[in-house]
Order: sequence, then C-alpha cells, then structure tokens
Amino acid sequence: MKIIRSIKVMQDYSGAEKKKGKKIGFVPTMGALHQGHLSLIKRAREENNSVVVSIFVNPAQFGPKEDFKKYPRDLQKDALLCKKNGVDVIFYPSAKAMYPPEYKTHVNVQDLSSVLCGKSRPGHFQGVATVVAKLFNIVGPTRAYFGQKDAQQATIINRMALDLNLPVKVRVLPTIREKDGLALSSRNLYLSQEERKEAVVLSEALKLARKLIRAGEKKSAAIIAAMRKLISSGRNAKIDYISIVDAKTLKPVPNISGKCLIALAVWIGKTRLIDNTYAS
Amino acid sequence: MKIIRSIKVMQDYSGAEKKKGKKIGFVPTMGALHQGHLSLIKRAREENNSVVVSIFVNPAQFGPKEDFKKYPRDLQKDALLCKKNGVDVIFYPSAKAMYPPEYKTHVNVQDLSSVLCGKSRPGHFQGVATVVAKLFNIVGPTRAYFGQKDAQQATIINRMALDLNLPVKVRVLPTIREKDGLALSSRNLYLSQEERKEAVVLSEALKLARKLIRAGEKKSAAIIAAMRKLISSGRNAKIDYISIVDAKTLKPVPNISGKCLIALAVWIGKTRLIDNTYAS
Repeated sequence: MKIIRSIKVMQDYSGAEKKKGKKIGFVPTMGALHQGHLSLIKRAREENNSVVVSIFVNPAQFGPKEDFKKYPRDLQKDALLCKKNGVDVIFYPSAKAMYPPEYKTHVNVQDLSSVLCGKSRPGHFQGVATVVAKLFNIVGPTRAYFGQKDAQQATIINRMALDLNLPVKVRVLPTIREKDGLALSSRNLYLSQEERKEAVVLSEALKLARKLIRAGEKKSAAIIAAMRKLISSGRNAKIDYISIVDAKTLKPVPNISGKCLIALAVWIGKTRLIDNTYAS
Repeated sequence: MKIIRSIKVMQDYSGAEKKKGKKIGFVPTMGALHQGHLSLIKRAREENNSVVVSIFVNPAQFGPKEDFKKYPRDLQKDALLCKKNGVDVIFYPSAKAMYPPEYKTHVNVQDLSSVLCGKSRPGHFQGVATVVAKLFNIVGPTRAYFGQKDAQQATIINRMALDLNLPVKVRVLPTIREKDGLALSSRNLYLSQEERKEAVVLSEALKLARKLIRAGEKKSAAIIAAMRKLISSGRNAKIDYISIVDAKTLKPVPNISGKCLIALAVWIGKTRLIDNTYAS
C-alpha cells in the first residue's frame, strides 16, 4: 500500500491506472476510520481494480466555532486498517496543497445545501462539494463510495457529480450501527460514558418514527412531535433539528408519501450527532 | 469530422482517445466562429492528436437583458470552418442536456468574478466558470485554448482549473484583430457600418495607453483619463469601464508596475465591446 501526499503524484497514478483500463474505487474520508468507512472500502475492493482512500480533514467544511482542531487524527492507525482491508493507495494531502494562498474557487449546490444540517452549519456543504470535486479530479475514480449516515452530503455530492458531468458513479451504502443502534461516527469518540448511553436516543427516535408510520401515521408534524418528546426526555440531549423531507429535493413534506427522508441532528452534551432513515 | 450532440457519446469518445494515449486539444466556443477562434483551433491542431470544438451558446452566462436570443448562430457555416481547419469533433449539446430541470450546481471564482466585466454583468462569470468546468469534464481535454481578448475569462478559467485540480492545461493565445485594430468578436456582427468605424476607438485607446506608458507615464488615473477623453469624442461610444489592474489578481493598481492589464468595455450604440492589452 502506498501513501501519496502529492496531488501531482496521485493524478499520475490514476492516469496510469486508467490507461491500463483499470477501474478505481474511491472512498473519501477525514480519517478516524471505523466500521462505516470499512464497509465502503470493502465494497470498493469488490467492485474495482484499485482502491484509493483519501484522508483529509478539510478545513473548508468546518465553521469557525466547530471542531476542526480537535477532530480525531491518527494516520498510523488508519493506515493499518486500510492495509488490512486491501486499500492500494491512501491519498493524504496537506491543507496547503489543497488550498494554496491564491485559492479562490467554490462549488455550490443550491437549495440542497441550505436546509437540514446546512441551516445549522452555513458554508459546510460548500466546503464539502468543493473538496469532493477537487478529490474527484485528483483521484479520477470510476466509482466513489459514501455512507447513508451523511444522507444530505450524499444527496449533494450525487447532484454535483451529475450536474458537473463528473465521470464517476456515486454509490451510497447503508449506515453501520453499534449493537444498540447508534450510528457509527468518528465524533462518537467525543462522548463521555454517560453521553454514549444517551446517544442511542437518535436511532431510538428514528425507530419510533418508523413504528408510527407502520401503524398508519401520515402526518409529519405528529411524527416529529413524538420524536421530539422522546429525545427531550434525555438529560444531555438538545435537538438541533428533526425534519421529514423529500429524499431527492430535501424539501419538507407535510405528509409521508413517496420516498421521504427522516433526518435529525441532536447535541449530546457538546457533541453534535446526526442520523436518518428512509420512510418509503 | 463528427458532430456529437450527446454528453455520454462525447465522454465515451474522449475516454477511448485517452485510453489510446491520445492528447485532446479543446476549443470551447459559442459558435459564430471567426479568425480568433480559428487561431485557437490551429494551435490545438498543432499540439494535440485530436481537436474538439464545442459550440454552445450558454444561457447561464447571459443576463436577463442581454443578447442571448439574438446571439449569432450558424452551425452549418461553423461546421464548414471547423472541417476546413482539421477539427475532429464538434461537440454541440442542447441547453436541456447541459441544464436539466433538476440542475443545481454552480462554480464560483471569488474576487476575480466581481470586478471589470463582472461588475456590469453580475452572474456572467459564474455562468462561464460553471459551463467550462462541465465542458472540461465532458471533453476531458489535455489542453484547452482561450483568446486573450476575453482576458478576465481566461484568468478566471485558469484559476478555476488550478483550484479544482482539473487535469487540463489552459492556453491563452493573442487577440486577433482587423487591419484597423478592432479585436475580432462575434458581437462585431451587430455593428452598423457607422458603428463599425467608430468601434476602432477601443483599440485606439489601448494604443494611446501604451504610448503614454512608453513615454514614461506611470499613473493609472492619468492614463485612464486620456483614454476616457479619446473615447468620449466618439458619437456612439459610451464607456462601461476602463481599468488598469494587476494581471493576476485583477485588482486596480494606482501605478503601472509589474504585469498590468489595461482593460475596457465600451458600448458602441447597443453593442457592448471589450478589449485589453498588457502593460508590462
């Protein structure tokens, strides 16, 4: 397994692979790899000749008061996991190489970026869309793999790739969860023991929503109210948002119909966690 | 020579060429081809194995009150010129294929897009950067060719290609002029005979600026004042802007030093023309 730091070397590697007719599977990450990432790597391994994982804690997608500095970084551990899981290349660029002082370009996916998490994290999805466009151009993947846990991100990247005619297939794979239901996230590392227990409330609220829908509830407001009540009973939980939206447009729907996404963000102490499920 | 209308067919063509190790030279145009475009095609022909010319009157770069509808279109004539000049493929997509109803993505090159022509044409350079990013991803060129006549456009596209790590070399070639100095432009077709004569005032003003600089004038304000006086003496000429800026940042410079761009936009009757020169 290679660790490539240079953008030019990475582009040359991809160019050479593609000239040989090889398919490149790409998993963009911010490191702190967990089973969620590994499920993406596994699929990339199955479907392609070459697997590239990028590890880049992208400053452009963090707000000024967010956790850019304390975001977990452990290249050694990540590299070991990548090697064990059959990764061919880790692309590990510096922020300076990705955003030199004269940098000026931003990619925006309108409407989709300003709702849900985009409301609480202005600029976040511009940072995500821009870095992923860059990474796609550097790594030149045949297929790129994202987790359903970041549903809005996946929707935005899929839209961007289609809109900018990026010759890459975007694959979105199911959220991987702990036994108790908590969605895997690098940010779970921030939780204290007590908070970790309470964090299960996100997936519990989604379970409740699915149960209500199965029982015939159609009104988004009623489902959200029940979820809100459940979450508010926790000691450290503070709701950022709970929304039921059309899965494609991310616009709120008053009633469950067609493919809907139930998405929520909840602060557990000082840690903001997200989760979602489809109600279709 | 092929005329390809489908994005997918164009991407497949480029993919196949690149697999064979061929270099693709790309000249993006809005059609109404003139000697300026042909000089780009000629250079592309010399430097690459395959030459692709796109013809697409991009609605996203026209303001609501601009000349999108009346912009000259003549595919037959353009195709003949392309064939004569050794073009391999004309890429001729529809606006509907380029911007389907669910389209949402925009590329912005900040600072560079809001000055000079960007001031009089808000949104114009976002439209340009976005369509060129798309075209680069569709055509997959090794090299892309632009005219110095659209200096700001060339600067923005060069910046965008670097920032987004697009694996393409951006080449900017000298402005081609009529005998009397008028820069070639598809929009010259709009001019009446009288206006055509008067339009020479743009290049005359640039000549005057160079003459003043050669004579030792350093102050931008003095040079601009002299240019303004010359242009204002015309019957149908109305100045949009005259600016002297740093060639890289496009920020106004009070004094000529380093590589400066002298750029102007002038209305001749109802036709807005641009021109520029370097003062270095």
